[in-house]
Amino acid sequence: MITINYKNVLGFLKEYELDYLHDIAKYSNELLENKKGAGNDFLGWVNLPTEALKNAKEIDALGKEIRENAEVLVSVGIGGSYLGARAVIESFLNPFAQAKKGATQVIYAGHNMNGEYFKHLLDYLEGKDFYVNVISKSGTTTEPAIAFRFLKEYAEKRYGKDGAAKRIIATTDAKKGALKTLSTENKYRTFVIPDDVGGRYSVLTPVGLIPIAAAGINIEELIKGFDSMAKLTKDSDYKKNPSMLYAILRNILYNKGFATEIMVNYIPRMHYISEWWKQLYGESEGKDKKGIYPSSVDFSTDLHSLGQFIQDGRRGLFETVIRVGHEDIDLKVKKEDSDLDGLNYLDGKKLHEINKSALEATVLAHVDGGVPNIIIDIDKITPFTIGELLYFFEKACGISGYILGVNPFDQPGVEEYKKNMFAMLGKKGYEEMGKTLRARLEK
Amino acid sequence: MITINYKNVLGFLKEYELDYLHDIAKYSNELLENKKGAGNDFLGWVNLPTEALKNAKEIDALGKEIRENAEVLVSVGIGGSYLGARAVIESFLNPFAQAKKGATQVIYAGHNMNGEYFKHLLDYLEGKDFYVNVISKSGTTTEPAIAFRFLKEYAEKRYGKDGAAKRIIATTDAKKGALKTLSTENKYRTFVIPDDVGGRYSVLTPVGLIPIAAAGINIEELIKGFDSMAKLTKDSDYKKNPSMLYAILRNILYNKGFATEIMVNYIPRMHYISEWWKQLYGESEGKDKKGIYPSSVDFSTDLHSLGQFIQDGRRGLFETVIRVGHEDIDLKVKKEDSDLDGLNYLDGKKLHEINKSALEATVLAHVDGGVPNIIIDIDKITPFTIGELLYFFEKACGISGYILGVNPFDQPGVEEYKKNMFAMLGKKGYEEMGKTLRARLEK
Repeated sequence: MITINYKNVLGFLKEYELDYLHDIAKYSNELLENKKGAGNDFLGWVNLPTEALKNAKEIDALGKEIRENAEVLVSVGIGGSYLGARAVIESFLNPFAQAKKGATQVIYAGHNMNGEYFKHLLDYLEGKDFYVNVISKSGTTTEPAIAFRFLKEYAEKRYGKDGAAKRIIATTDAKKGALKTLSTENKYRTFVIPDDVGGRYSVLTPVGLIPIAAAGINIEELIKGFDSMAKLTKDSDYKKNPSMLYAILRNILYNKGFATEIMVNYIPRMHYISEWWKQLYGESEGKDKKGIYPSSVDFSTDLHSLGQFIQDGRRGLFETVIRVGHEDIDLKVKKEDSDLDGLNYLDGKKLHEINKSALEATVLAHVDGGVPNIIIDIDKITPFTIGELLYFFEKACGISGYILGVNPFDQPGVEEYKKNMFAMLGKKGYEEMGKTLRARLEK
Repeated sequence: MITINYKNVLGFLKEYELDYLHDIAKYSNELLENKKGAGNDFLGWVNLPTEALKNAKEIDALGKEIRENAEVLVSVGIGGSYLGARAVIESFLNPFAQAKKGATQVIYAGHNMNGEYFKHLLDYLEGKDFYVNVISKSGTTTEPAIAFRFLKEYAEKRYGKDGAAKRIIATTDAKKGALKTLSTENKYRTFVIPDDVGGRYSVLTPVGLIPIAAAGINIEELIKGFDSMAKLTKDSDYKKNPSMLYAILRNILYNKGFATEIMVNYIPRMHYISEWWKQLYGESEGKDKKGIYPSSVDFSTDLHSLGQFIQDGRRGLFETVIRVGHEDIDLKVKKEDSDLDGLNYLDGKKLHEINKSALEATVLAHVDGGVPNIIIDIDKITPFTIGELLYFFEKACGISGYILGVNPFDQPGVEEYKKNMFAMLGKKGYEEMGKTLRARLEK
């Protein structure tokens, strides 16, 4: 269960403000459920779990095959085809290990265009057995397409054309596009990116599930958590629907000028959950010159970095803090004879308790500094609760976007740099634009 | 050489605005050089290189000793005792390797209080030879002090008390404090954190240099780059002094309402340079309810995440882009018979060129979206240029803080959460405060 604690926001708003937005939030939630709002072509994720559970067996079997035949899976994708899988995988990864025991290490490509990164990646694959999962709706997005050219060539050199074809899995459109055509020609196994699920909402489609399964994470539990939250958030009362409550709170704060939201983690392996969240909210709400700017920190690390600013810098920030109730493995501080460092007062305390006290201490300090704090409580990090958390954020994002008055399911701004890049690189059809841009650069 | 290209800011300001701030910037630079301004007890870094070069030989020898005797160095520190070393080390690290060839892997502790992280770290050390470098002025900062209790116990179990003492290096105060006393009692080798250099300006003191040397990076070159920029930025003409120019530009933008600065990298291994920069600027300027909010992205990765927001979300953002001129290792896109992915127009182009075109394309797109772009040009990533870059940012930060009207060398806000935490955890002397806070939490 995910619950929202908003006690530390109450100093910044009146409770009736929640009621004033309640009907709008309820209406927004209904628009999502009934697929009647802006961007309603992209609402496949709202009731995805049924579909996902159908695919789960096949993907589970593929995960097993990868774990048995590959030390490394190269996951090729960018944006939603990268962040969802990474967020889930790293949430269950020992930070000093490359993979879970008996599972395949997942590494990422096609999410940057740095030559050195790619050279090092190819070197790393030498002598290791690997699979490639290339994830792209069209197959023509520049970053993953470049990466896949190199990886396809390398895989064919290592395993022959037929051998490589058995080790390349394409997650792509059901019928059309470059990657679909290439897959048919080369007999790659393909999995479908549904037409009605956008990249940033796609973690529980094959896009995210294949790398997650290869990494040895229980995808059925993940889907069940997602499903559980899908059911819960059909409720039209914000007191019972955490997605509605979160959407209402952040819109109230935004309307008061709190225009930057900082997602706060105290568990280092949840770092990429925040990265995934930044795409989800940034792409969904950051348009038409509107939207809350999404930012993130890892505490207590960054209390010694951005902490000073959050405490006392320019105001307009609010924080959303993920509080994890329990941790399995844990260590206790022990008494020492000489108490030079003055830590003996912590004798017998678990690090997790100390970490939670730091969380509570920080919430109060930041509230005193003028920073509203929303706390998201989750009991423990498990595949089920991470599934819940993902759906919670997705549903809240849709509601929040409708309250803000944007289409939370498009991303027209992402095309701007692409068009310029094609022009700069001399792509056919962009010649005139290229001239104009080069003239601007030489000015 | 580092140069600032501000062509893509000119649409947002008039050139005379630079001249209007010139005298103030010049005066601020002189305050730093003459140590007459606010926080002038902490200006040891301004002419640090002479001091740093004196220590370099001893630290180099220690680095060699560590490389010969340890697979792993655990660097224990938080804030400036963590980020500077990590920023430099990762700038030279193959992302798929744990260490440079023949060098020691540096791992980090004492920068969080997550029990699982720590348990995994101790497991990781099993069977590996290691050194510990504990970095703390006082020796009582909670996070590193807790980490060091565990590591000291573990090292003594592994190597015996005397053996451990040879493998523990303390970077701490010259004369006083818990860690200094403990080091004397246990005969640890110690290196000095100068009194006049604050954490976030300490990367070229033993704080940063010891882990950097152990990681196999040429610290003399790093110091020479730092020194070269220290000399260059004595110039009082912003046309010749990039630190002054950067400080002027960002203050002009801030005064117009551009209150969030996004540091942009296109080279993934520079990620932690941005993290270091966020501490430097966030802690220096974020006070008295003032300051530019520092944020960062890795492009092109995050063009498919925060890119939409930057292009078209709520305005008030500006970007500072690090453009690296050359890259040693590189790969070229090759023609393929079937051009399904449509990439053949890139035939023969190096990834680094494509990446730079993406950079230029993005700068123009974001400028068109209303986001001023400052470009910082550096030729290549080498220890020398990274040394230059670090000093460039430090000097600019001092100047910028003075223009803003803050003391760029204190961080009073960081104490707030600490006091609350001591109270919550029941530390002696905080009993009354503890009661009040607990009452607030239970409310």
